[in-house]
Amino acid sequence: MWFKYIMVKLVLQNVSTLRGIVGVLNDILKEAKFKMTNDGVHMSATDPAKIIMIVLDIPRTGFDEYICEKEVELGVSIEEFYNVLKRANKGETVQIENIDNKLKIITTGKVTREFVLPLIESIEDAPKITTGEFSAKIVAETDIIVTAIDDASIISDELVFKATQGNFEVAAKSEFHSTNLNLIKDKLIDLNVKESAQSTFSIDYLRRIFATSKLAPVAELNISTNHIGKFSFSATDMFRMYFLLAPRTTD
Amino acid sequence: MWFKYIMVKLVLQNVSTLRGIVGVLNDILKEAKFKMTNDGVHMSATDPAKIIMIVLDIPRTGFDEYICEKEVELGVSIEEFYNVLKRANKGETVQIENIDNKLKIITTGKVTREFVLPLIESIEDAPKITTGEFSAKIVAETDIIVTAIDDASIISDELVFKATQGNFEVAAKSEFHSTNLNLIKDKLIDLNVKESAQSTFSIDYLRRIFATSKLAPVAELNISTNHIGKFSFSATDMFRMYFLLAPRTTD
Amino acid sequence: MWFKYIMVKLVLQNVSTLRGIVGVLNDILKEAKFKMTNDGVHMSATDPAKIIMIVLDIPRTGFDEYICEKEVELGVSIEEFYNVLKRANKGETVQIENIDNKLKIITTGKVTREFVLPLIESIEDAPKITTGEFSAKIVAETDIIVTAIDDASIISDELVFKATQGNFEVAAKSEFHSTNLNLIKDKLIDLNVKESAQSTFSIDYLRRIFATSKLAPVAELNISTNHIGKFSFSATDMFRMYFLLAPRTTD
Repeated sequence: MWFKYIMVKLVLQNVSTLRGIVGVLNDILKEAKFKMTNDGVHMSATDPAKIIMIVLDIPRTGFDEYICEKEVELGVSIEEFYNVLKRANKGETVQIENIDNKLKIITTGKVTREFVLPLIESIEDAPKITTGEFSAKIVAETDIIVTAIDDASIISDELVFKATQGNFEVAAKSEFHSTNLNLIKDKLIDLNVKESAQSTFSIDYLRRIFATSKLAPVAELNISTNHIGKFSFSATDMFRMYFLLAPRTTD
Repeated sequence: MWFKYIMVKLVLQNVSTLRGIVGVLNDILKEAKFKMTNDGVHMSATDPAKIIMIVLDIPRTGFDEYICEKEVELGVSIEEFYNVLKRANKGETVQIENIDNKLKIITTGKVTREFVLPLIESIEDAPKITTGEFSAKIVAETDIIVTAIDDASIISDELVFKATQGNFEVAAKSEFHSTNLNLIKDKLIDLNVKESAQSTFSIDYLRRIFATSKLAPVAELNISTNHIGKFSFSATDMFRMYFLLAPRTTD
Repeated sequence: MWFKYIMVKLVLQNVSTLRGIVGVLNDILKEAKFKMTNDGVHMSATDPAKIIMIVLDIPRTGFDEYICEKEVELGVSIEEFYNVLKRANKGETVQIENIDNKLKIITTGKVTREFVLPLIESIEDAPKITTGEFSAKIVAETDIIVTAIDDASIISDELVFKATQGNFEVAAKSEFHSTNLNLIKDKLIDLNVKESAQSTFSIDYLRRIFATSKLAPVAELNISTNHIGKFSFSATDMFRMYFLLAPRTTD
């Protein structure tokens, strides 16, 4: 019977958010395993160098139609998946099906096109990472953070996030050069500092993470001194994604 | 007397179609011989690898002024000719003259500019190619075909055109991947299949050929099984251009 | 007291002209010394190959606020300065301060950002160059000259500026190719020829110089036969900039 073989069927009238998410993944991951359940899609993965961990959830409400007959893990090449999603034109409906050991993507507009990609079986589970509680939580408009990251990039390849009572700072320094963005609490959506904290991160990795800004106007940053940072983005009913990023240690 | 030396004078109020045609040629040919007669301009040439043959006709109605005192063949470097045509700005009139062994191109707008290029004497005639009758004729909107070619390019460097009664398909396949555009007759402008036919072509060459889509919203495709394909484009009173493309044989 | 250390403070509501000027400098110079006086900013410098000399004046009226407590020379890396100016967004105010041996640039919009660059002490003075009187003065719309330079670039790496009574010509020639723009006096804003003059210049250098066209719709060209050319641009109350360019000699 046909329904034995179609375990998963997802339909999107507008593929732009999913394409945006997979575009962000494509700058960090080579391949990933999407776990499909009745509740939605879950993915966690680390980049090959294990500097970033990504955890993504797309609830079933993020799709116009969502059928998952049985829990299943679908491993795909992110680049291949992204290349197909980029082929969907504005106004086209995108349908994603799991048939046997393949992923079929069907775009429907003026004409109907089909793309078939192989599923990858052997993707390892992402490690469990425990971050503990963070010293500081900062909620800010993403475009401000992106601006500060780009500022820092003209003089350095790393920057410092620094939170104190009433203040959040993004700064880069070399022997003779510096850039600095200083945000008092009023310029932030939220600032909650249990303990002053500062941590240094790679600008290259932050840029890949904050590319998510195109999908979410607000980000939550959680930092502790010289500790992993957690950067979270979401759009209600559409997706939640967070990134854990290892700090640069300068000892 | 001066008119002895000006054998050819062509004037265009709007150079965009000619520039578009020469732009397509520039991705396929290094040089070409344009045969000028009282009826218009004719050119046939093959690419250096002899995979594509191009036959172009621009009737005298394709020009705002067309003087050809005597039949003459004008050989030019396509790249040089294209570089000059690209220099004409919107709203400028372009005049092309053959003076002695040179080609003079004059652009006139706010100011008048002159470009002189050498003519090339030694260009060989293109071979005569006999295609015989084709098994299937497909007439389609060019943007649909271009989309299918681009789809195929994400997984392969070749694709199959396949025509059956009532159906035209553009497909690419590798061991685990595939892309497919299936067009029933209703989605086509015309479909005439004497005998089912399928032939495989290089995506790279098809892209160069279908770059002509910018100049013509409709293309006619003629195919036979494992045979040369013929791809024709035209704009009434402006130009007719067709391409013969050798198939990829997979034996 | 704080005012001992801030010798210079410049404020611009709109940084686009300054950014444009520094962008032009950035294609010619590595570093430069800006001499700040009560009247404004003065800079003269030659490119590393000493083919071009640039003389720039920005009067104090070119700034929304201009404080210069004491004459001072500020040497900076042009690339670093340009990279910072590019970071200012539309609508942001830019403030430039000299503090100790540093240059501080503060952009203020929705948020305030600070950039600190080192000052460079050891920049040599530009040589004094005496050009004498020129044989011909041509005043023209810059976009016409830019078009002629770009025309010439498709066949050569140098071009000739040629002025005669009532006529100004920009031409390039190789053995078989040529491009030519011939401007009668009517097409020019001014033409004053004491003596016919023609001089050959590098297209690459002319392009870098005439990039200033984006900031000034009119240029004054001064030439003498086989002599340095002088190319001047200005915007009233905003800036005056001229370039001396060594001719190509072809003997």
